[in-house]
Amino acid sequence: MSVEEIKKARSAVEFNREQLESVLRGRFFYAPAFDLYGGVSGLYDYGPPGCAFQANVVDVWRKHFILEEDMLEVDCTMLTPYEVLKTSGHVDKFSDWMCRDLKTGEIFRADHLVEEVLEARLKGDKEARGLSTNNDAEESADKKKRKKKVKQIKVVKLEDDVVKEYETVLAKIDGYSGEELGELMKKYDIGNPATGEPLEPPKAFNLMFETAIGPSGQLKGYLRPETAQGQFLNFNKLLEFNNSKTPFASASIGKSFRNEISPRAGLLRVREFLMAEIEHFVDPLDKSHPKFEDVKHIELSFLPRDVQEAGSTEPIVKTIGDAVASKMVDNETLGYFIARIYQFLVKIGVDASKMRFRQHMSNEMAHYAADCWDAELKTSYGWIECVGCADRSAFDLTVHSNKTKEKLVVRQKLDTPIEVTKFEIDLTKKLFGPKFRKDAPKVESYLLNLSQEELKAKSEELEKNQKIVFKIDAIEGDVELDDKFVKIEERTKVEHVREFVPNVIEPSFGIGRIIYAVFEHSFWNRPEDVARGVLSFPPLVAPSKVLLVPLSNHKDLQPITKEVSKILRKAQIPFKVDDSGVSIGKRYSRNDELGTPFGITIDFESVNDNSVTLRERDSTKQVRGSVEDIINAIREITYNGVSWDEGTKNLEPFVSQ
Amino acid sequence: MSVEEIKKARSAVEFNREQLESVLRGRFFYAPAFDLYGGVSGLYDYGPPGCAFQANVVDVWRKHFILEEDMLEVDCTMLTPYEVLKTSGHVDKFSDWMCRDLKTGEIFRADHLVEEVLEARLKGDKEARGLSTNNDAEESADKKKRKKKVKQIKVVKLEDDVVKEYETVLAKIDGYSGEELGELMKKYDIGNPATGEPLEPPKAFNLMFETAIGPSGQLKGYLRPETAQGQFLNFNKLLEFNNSKTPFASASIGKSFRNEISPRAGLLRVREFLMAEIEHFVDPLDKSHPKFEDVKHIELSFLPRDVQEAGSTEPIVKTIGDAVASKMVDNETLGYFIARIYQFLVKIGVDASKMRFRQHMSNEMAHYAADCWDAELKTSYGWIECVGCADRSAFDLTVHSNKTKEKLVVRQKLDTPIEVTKFEIDLTKKLFGPKFRKDAPKVESYLLNLSQEELKAKSEELEKNQKIVFKIDAIEGDVELDDKFVKIEERTKVEHVREFVPNVIEPSFGIGRIIYAVFEHSFWNRPEDVARGVLSFPPLVAPSKVLLVPLSNHKDLQPITKEVSKILRKAQIPFKVDDSGVSIGKRYSRNDELGTPFGITIDFESVNDNSVTLRERDSTKQVRGSVEDIINAIREITYNGVSWDEGTKNLEPFVSQ
Repeated sequence: MSVEEIKKARSAVEFNREQLESVLRGRFFYAPAFDLYGGVSGLYDYGPPGCAFQANVVDVWRKHFILEEDMLEVDCTMLTPYEVLKTSGHVDKFSDWMCRDLKTGEIFRADHLVEEVLEARLKGDKEARGLSTNNDAEESADKKKRKKKVKQIKVVKLEDDVVKEYETVLAKIDGYSGEELGELMKKYDIGNPATGEPLEPPKAFNLMFETAIGPSGQLKGYLRPETAQGQFLNFNKLLEFNNSKTPFASASIGKSFRNEISPRAGLLRVREFLMAEIEHFVDPLDKSHPKFEDVKHIELSFLPRDVQEAGSTEPIVKTIGDAVASKMVDNETLGYFIARIYQFLVKIGVDASKMRFRQHMSNEMAHYAADCWDAELKTSYGWIECVGCADRSAFDLTVHSNKTKEKLVVRQKLDTPIEVTKFEIDLTKKLFGPKFRKDAPKVESYLLNLSQEELKAKSEELEKNQKIVFKIDAIEGDVELDDKFVKIEERTKVEHVREFVPNVIEPSFGIGRIIYAVFEHSFWNRPEDVARGVLSFPPLVAPSKVLLVPLSNHKDLQPITKEVSKILRKAQIPFKVDDSGVSIGKRYSRNDELGTPFGITIDFESVNDNSVTLRERDSTKQVRGSVEDIINAIREITYNGVSWDEGTKNLEPFVSQ
Repeated sequence: MSVEEIKKARSAVEFNREQLESVLRGRFFYAPAFDLYGGVSGLYDYGPPGCAFQANVVDVWRKHFILEEDMLEVDCTMLTPYEVLKTSGHVDKFSDWMCRDLKTGEIFRADHLVEEVLEARLKGDKEARGLSTNNDAEESADKKKRKKKVKQIKVVKLEDDVVKEYETVLAKIDGYSGEELGELMKKYDIGNPATGEPLEPPKAFNLMFETAIGPSGQLKGYLRPETAQGQFLNFNKLLEFNNSKTPFASASIGKSFRNEISPRAGLLRVREFLMAEIEHFVDPLDKSHPKFEDVKHIELSFLPRDVQEAGSTEPIVKTIGDAVASKMVDNETLGYFIARIYQFLVKIGVDASKMRFRQHMSNEMAHYAADCWDAELKTSYGWIECVGCADRSAFDLTVHSNKTKEKLVVRQKLDTPIEVTKFEIDLTKKLFGPKFRKDAPKVESYLLNLSQEELKAKSEELEKNQKIVFKIDAIEGDVELDDKFVKIEERTKVEHVREFVPNVIEPSFGIGRIIYAVFEHSFWNRPEDVARGVLSFPPLVAPSKVLLVPLSNHKDLQPITKEVSKILRKAQIPFKVDDSGVSIGKRYSRNDELGTPFGITIDFESVNDNSVTLRERDSTKQVRGSVEDIINAIREITYNGVSWDEGTKNLEPFVSQ
């Protein structure tokens, strides 16, 4: 089979998700965690092939990003104290809205409920108008991810303006506050879809798992919802490690946790998941990237903000170079990472034709973000957000710095000194001790850490009242200081060092979601044997690389089987032996389900001349050669990116008897 | 320098822990987590070199155990529901005893407190008797791990019999219950060591972090205290994956959590840590191991139970073959893993002379365990338990099976059928439906899952009373059944299949502790430059393999530096470039602290003839050759276990100008 023929064969049989899931569970790629105890929704275990696949994806990620770009990898704790996540905004804002049915005890996620009920009504309306509603493929990702709560569509025609209203609401569904969702539920009479009974108004449910650290129970903590905070908190140490040079990036691979309200859809919405995150720290005045040249020719599918606002899902295809040049993508560094994300995803088996980069709408994006693009992968659940790539500006470092009063900045020696005019504060320190005693350092630190805006205000206050009045956490009542204690002036000075808070470009990968997308993109059925599935993983990430099959379990074949095993083990090529009695064909098709790219067949000829047969999974092509040559071909194709044709060009074609 | 000379140099300067810690923190091997927020005790982040070192150790572990032995790796969730850990015994027994000082709010770990106070008194007694107390090196590991709570030793002579009593208590300190510890505190008048005030009696403090899963808050869960449970729960799926063959092993690498009462001692006692665990499932009637032959010559230091009971710490040195033959180590499989643990630890840089295998005393070992040995590594904190290797018998599978009523067994076809006599129960099923309605399946399942002992008892009860009476969780009140419902008989049958619960041999690695021990074992000072430390990691696990240093930052050297970088990157050999202006010597000694084994110097000669200098960290020996030959030597020495002498034999010795 040629590459074209394989391509054709792969799309001949329609994709069947149930069959894929039955393969994935049957071959223990993954399984519901605590199955024996009835399972816990949103928690999954990876079995041997899933675990090996995941480890390989992580390994490729590490080489593609960390090694290639000299990133600084860190491994930070998952347990995180309250204070940190309060400062980052997660305690206040990392929540979904939930509604409880007081009668049944059921809990619904408010935005999903409103979305689903209105969509069901629109569908009923379409049917009533005699229009086709067979547009499942176009449904939004989130909607298809859930088990439907609305079990039956009622065929009821709606007023034309109600249809318009519903459509407007649905277009903005990700941006509503809890109160607004509550109002929508009242206005459109949305209750429990099964019973019609009203629900409690939406309450914020924080998605972080809470726990207590230490024996006193008084130090409240959470399981981290992302790996990013650990990287921000270590910024000063990382900068020092990097000899104070910017730009540089840190990276982290580890588990994060989200207490989803009602997780469904298998590996796509889970409560514990592997993330890989990069924080690239860059000068806000210079977001160019030295290696942008290398990627700017890469063509991608973009779904920018304005296209979405015009109600279209038709992507714009252009090079990342053009996208940055036209300012559609904010800057080179962001563009560079978008292209590198694309390269990574293709390398591990994502179908490039099922990938798009969607820009966040203004109401989705945090106020501080300069730009944000999601790599979305198309699956049978719709388009799924798998990688986020955001320019988070200086937000994270600034909030932690403000909270802890520690500077998180880069100092850059200036080639030509510059004149800077700014407010400065002088303290008459000898007066602070007698007045504030042990609190004196706190008062001084408060004053020395005032921002330029605050200093300006205080300087005006001081001029007007000959004193300033303020409050400090640690001290009861007002603190009052007259102009004997403090002097605030605007001064112009020549500076030799520029100090700045770097901006952060953050590519953030949900490894589990990516893996699931690769499963779907890799799965197909041979037209001649539709009952069996094939997982066409790239050899680089396949859980096992080789299936070693002695033709029969005749004792004469055992020594050479052992010998080949030894050579493969020494070459550190993961392999399995299948010396069960069943037919070669059956053994191979069992392994197609595991995505093993190569098969080595040992026959009686092998005993005589040390030659073996190599089979390729997708084409089922076979070649013959010495054990050494065959293993060498496997190594080249698997780890060095050599094609099958190139890697086997010196081996004999082989036609099985 | 020859190997002997290096060895001599490495022990010339006395080990200084403070200096090591200052290197580890200064070069960001690790740092207290949330430092910016004041830190949280027992939580640490790994910076770039620590993280790379950890990743390399894990990689070696995976190859040494999982790949070599064809183990089935799984990745299970950390979030674990209450039920599972209730069954495993962790909810009831995974705790330490804590005492609170009601006045100050301080919390003490009871066993540590008793131990420390009695030891302080014994020390005071020795001083009063005029005996030397300078035996710090011999102190127990746990004692030295903590910051001392007893700040001052009072010089008071004790009665001779009191000294004896104290010594007896200390020898058994790990085995006391909370009540017993409370009695000891009363008897010996042990209170807050700082104030002398009495403490609350010891209370059990469970060491698991608790959380709630899902929005209702009703599903109680914990963060796993070990990775083992996930492996046990997936036993049936793993067995099926392994084509129902035993023995086989599963393995898992991941974070676990223990809410230590007052963690101290850096990386040795932490609240979140990386574990690597193996569960080897084996026939209880046959614990031989096919590869035991390969390791039986390995000589190890053993501290068996009887030596400890005799009050000695003098190890017995013998081969693992002799240890198993003499039954000191219970069986071949356990012995095989002990030897493989030894090989692994030596491979990653543990000093074999600072390793011993200590057998658990009877009061340390769980009642079900057949045998248990800890690999202990000697550090400046004393002997530290770093790897446990236990034969846990059939305990874990049995308790989960009993709880869930799912069989967790191996079925083995017998070559010759055997006669088996056992109790069997027959149910008259048609009577169950009318009597129990929807509960009928529960009653049937309860009866069909009775053990042989229970069946025997029930058969006697039935014979005596013509009925049996029992309780079932799901049903209120007693369940009564007469002999029309059930028949219980002892029958002799011929069986063709043997069914057994496999035993579990569990090697369990605390990666963080091992890493810290390797840090200590690798650290030394050059006698000629004691201010600077060297970390002599084996190249295989060193964070970075090569430091690339252009002689100066002259522009002529830049192209070849770039060229060599490119070759190293392509060869996937981790390296760093140091083109700072400081002297070569300084750049090398800075990198000795990071444990980088090789340096490549690029000079003006290199530009002409493509030759570079290779420097070895420990001996500071240098050789010269072409870029290709030098990189080839690095690859062979780092990844293929070739010695320096062998790897560089074709290169020219080089003496720096």
